[in-house]
Amino acid sequence: MIKGIRFAGVESGIKPKGYDLGLVFFEEPMNCLAAYTRNRVKAAHILFNRRQKTDNVSAILVNSGCANACTGREGLEDIKAINNRLSEALNIEGQGILFASTGVIGKRLPKDRIIDAIPGLLKGLKEKNIELFANAIMTTDTYPKIVKTKFKGKRQYTIVGVAKGSGMINPLFATMLAFFFTDYPVPKEGFKRYFMDSVRGSFERITVDGECSTNDTVMLFSRKSNEDEDSLGLFRDSLNKAMKELSLMVVRDGEGATRVIHIIIKGAKTKETAERIARRIATSPLSKTAFFGCDPNWGRFIAAAGDAGVPVDPSKVEIIMQGEVLVRAGVEVPFDEQGLKGMMNKKDIELIVDLHEGRSSYDIYTTDLTYDYIKINASYRS
Amino acid sequence: MIKGIRFAGVESGIKPKGYDLGLVFFEEPMNCLAAYTRNRVKAAHILFNRRQKTDNVSAILVNSGCANACTGREGLEDIKAINNRLSEALNIEGQGILFASTGVIGKRLPKDRIIDAIPGLLKGLKEKNIELFANAIMTTDTYPKIVKTKFKGKRQYTIVGVAKGSGMINPLFATMLAFFFTDYPVPKEGFKRYFMDSVRGSFERITVDGECSTNDTVMLFSRKSNEDEDSLGLFRDSLNKAMKELSLMVVRDGEGATRVIHIIIKGAKTKETAERIARRIATSPLSKTAFFGCDPNWGRFIAAAGDAGVPVDPSKVEIIMQGEVLVRAGVEVPFDEQGLKGMMNKKDIELIVDLHEGRSSYDIYTTDLTYDYIKINASYRS
Repeated sequence: MIKGIRFAGVESGIKPKGYDLGLVFFEEPMNCLAAYTRNRVKAAHILFNRRQKTDNVSAILVNSGCANACTGREGLEDIKAINNRLSEALNIEGQGILFASTGVIGKRLPKDRIIDAIPGLLKGLKEKNIELFANAIMTTDTYPKIVKTKFKGKRQYTIVGVAKGSGMINPLFATMLAFFFTDYPVPKEGFKRYFMDSVRGSFERITVDGECSTNDTVMLFSRKSNEDEDSLGLFRDSLNKAMKELSLMVVRDGEGATRVIHIIIKGAKTKETAERIARRIATSPLSKTAFFGCDPNWGRFIAAAGDAGVPVDPSKVEIIMQGEVLVRAGVEVPFDEQGLKGMMNKKDIELIVDLHEGRSSYDIYTTDLTYDYIKINASYRS
Repeated sequence: MIKGIRFAGVESGIKPKGYDLGLVFFEEPMNCLAAYTRNRVKAAHILFNRRQKTDNVSAILVNSGCANACTGREGLEDIKAINNRLSEALNIEGQGILFASTGVIGKRLPKDRIIDAIPGLLKGLKEKNIELFANAIMTTDTYPKIVKTKFKGKRQYTIVGVAKGSGMINPLFATMLAFFFTDYPVPKEGFKRYFMDSVRGSFERITVDGECSTNDTVMLFSRKSNEDEDSLGLFRDSLNKAMKELSLMVVRDGEGATRVIHIIIKGAKTKETAERIARRIATSPLSKTAFFGCDPNWGRFIAAAGDAGVPVDPSKVEIIMQGEVLVRAGVEVPFDEQGLKGMMNKKDIELIVDLHEGRSSYDIYTTDLTYDYIKINASYRS
């Protein structure tokens, strides 16, 4: 996919079966920008990575099947031991390795199994093996999530992204793990805020279950050089697009989801008001079950809006579902309920709530709440 | 149940079938204390009641099947029309009638059906008919909810409470409708704060689905007199007990619930911290599905705690489920997982999270999240 970036994925025995350990190796050390969970309880890989230099990274090792969160000092020691062995094996002393984990909280990494898997991982490292890597980082995902986009600066550049969902997904932010790789030489200074903007516009605008994970991680690996700063705008556009696309794949594959609902709040006095209401509706179980049941039960949306902790004047609210006006000036307008049920029986639903109080807006993507979400999560560990 | 307080319940045709209209008549006009939803979107009955004098109330009319919320000016006009006709029929001009509604949001009350039902309601008014009234106010409840308690002051007094659940239940506060009646003469001044304390200790400490309704209402009707102020302490104790008991009936009958989980947060620096964490765990879908699946997956509780927006030091946290210590100083201690699963397969579960940072605590009751919650709410209106 990108010259000099090699991927591998193997079965190491962390999970009872299936791929569970992935490695990415950079022939030329890369710079890494990262955004981590805002949960106060953070996984060991986040604590470890934050202590590393991130401008000279040669590899990232990612496992599924074990979150290595709430594992105390031992959890950090486990990573250090693996780091030492992998660094030796890759022969990259002086360069850094970063880590990421996803899976059950509270269990320690099976360190020896991971170390034993290193020779196999190294043997499997190939530029084309990104799908094996994408498989190795999945938990309840039903398919691997990879995006690829190209743009033309001084020369042709590529951005590749890989992510895993699909529960414990909530904005601030929203996927447990997502990795982006590019051969574009991101300028050394000042890009972090653009990176965060891109995260805020994508992974922070999806939710599956309102649950903020201990392990959420978004990383961008890029070449280190200022040789093509003129193309920075193009790169930003492409990165935004890639992040948006990958984040939508995560919500599309949300646990048990049958639909993706795009919730758009318009006409708010402030963006914060719009965001609070959007997030409240997007995480409301009664709204999410109504979407599952194709029920245009708009009272649930307005009740959620009223419970968002910000002022709402119900007498001004307009609600539009799939292009049909359901509510104007806070009261129901006649609509064809059976017809609308049919229009809601789609994979994609658009809900607009216009507060008619100002000019600010916010949008977010959420899933419906279904039997399968319960099924997956009532028996996740067994 | 209480002399001079008469109840009725009838089928008026608001719902396709079943009891849907209840009336309580006070031979001697009563004083009413009320607490209403904190949702910014409030039902018409709340807007109406707030404009009434509440110290001379002769009746309360309650309907299920229609929330009369988000119905604009017409929703208020409907109540006024019903109020006029009922006032005439009861021959109580100069005394007040209060109203309460529950059901689907956004639909207007079938005013004429309600007015047509008034003669039948009046004919049915009897002191013993509280069960008919309790049936008439139910929506997705599976059984009527009535509590009764007595205490001895200058003479023997009774408190009777009636409530309906069972979805859109969240603290701040927590049942859509609850009514308490007593023949104790509550002193005219200063009792409101005790009433609110009692609400905060009961209905504000339960949640089913984290959804705050537009219609939530708790009312206390009492005789008006200062003739037995000495018994106020006894009355408060009895009222607290009755509210607690009734609120637990609501959570026990929460939509789809198979268990009630008592979540106790201890060792917090402030009560607010303890409350935030308790509420966050109590509304976490991953925690609630774990309870459904009898899975002692404590990582979900600690991840929810970390996402409560208040400081948490995971290295100090202790977690105790059904008396078994799962986590000490933030890491798992060996426990018999199969044995614990068996201990969780109960109607009542106790989860203690001790932060070991201070002396404040908070507790709340929640339900598990089950297939039946989805079933009920994906097809509530059909």
